[in-house]
Amino acid sequence: MAEHPEFNVLTATCPSRTSLTRIANRWTAMVVSALGGGRLRFSDLRTAVDGISGKVLTGTLRELERDGLVSRHVFAEVPPRVEYELTELGRTLHAPLRALGDWAEEHIEEVLKARAAFDNCR
Amino acid sequence: MAEHPEFNVLTATCPSRTSLTRIANRWTAMVVSALGGGRLRFSDLRTAVDGISGKVLTGTLRELERDGLVSRHVFAEVPPRVEYELTELGRTLHAPLRALGDWAEEHIEEVLKARAAFDNCR
Repeated sequence: MAEHPEFNVLTATCPSRTSLTRIANRWTAMVVSALGGGRLRFSDLRTAVDGISGKVLTGTLRELERDGLVSRHVFAEVPPRVEYELTELGRTLHAPLRALGDWAEEHIEEVLKARAAFDNCR
Repeated sequence: MAEHPEFNVLTATCPSRTSLTRIANRWTAMVVSALGGGRLRFSDLRTAVDGISGKVLTGTLRELERDGLVSRHVFAEVPPRVEYELTELGRTLHAPLRALGDWAEEHIEEVLKARAAFDNCR
């Protein structure tokens, strides 16, 4: 916050909060992680982000495109081929979002232990 | 992913995804950011995370406590005083989550420009 005193995500009306809402999201984290390896077709992205519904993937991609994080490439083929790619701005988000996935993978055993203790004490 | 080959958030059934779902969340990001300065009472936390409802803050703190990220300290006073603090595990999440807030504050002007362009082209 100190580096950008004009914007503060902790203030409800600050526009930066709308961006935080988009990026601090599990589907955003997974889609951006998956696109870190390069552009993908919709169907390949859906395979990469195991369990995402077509509807959620469509909505997530649309919001990421709207925020300038993902670009959409349509090829005039039959059937049309559509590929998605991180923009330059989106690539700056790859490391911070991948860090969340890494954290979850690295600490899941501690989290599961904490959950078991919490649930057994209630 | 390569560092923790046994867990992969991109696999739907991997337990690490449940942890990612909790941490890749705007309220988690804001609450953990706010607690980065030290323990806080519920009312002070609610003030710090401007706009959060009491219900959402209660639910977020409970899930963070369950996952071992936040500890709850109850003081036998009248009325009882309750304070919340990041655990050692929770503190390891402060920097990655604060990085998302920093990203949102740093890039909001680019995001707003992208949104305006997107909305004007439809």
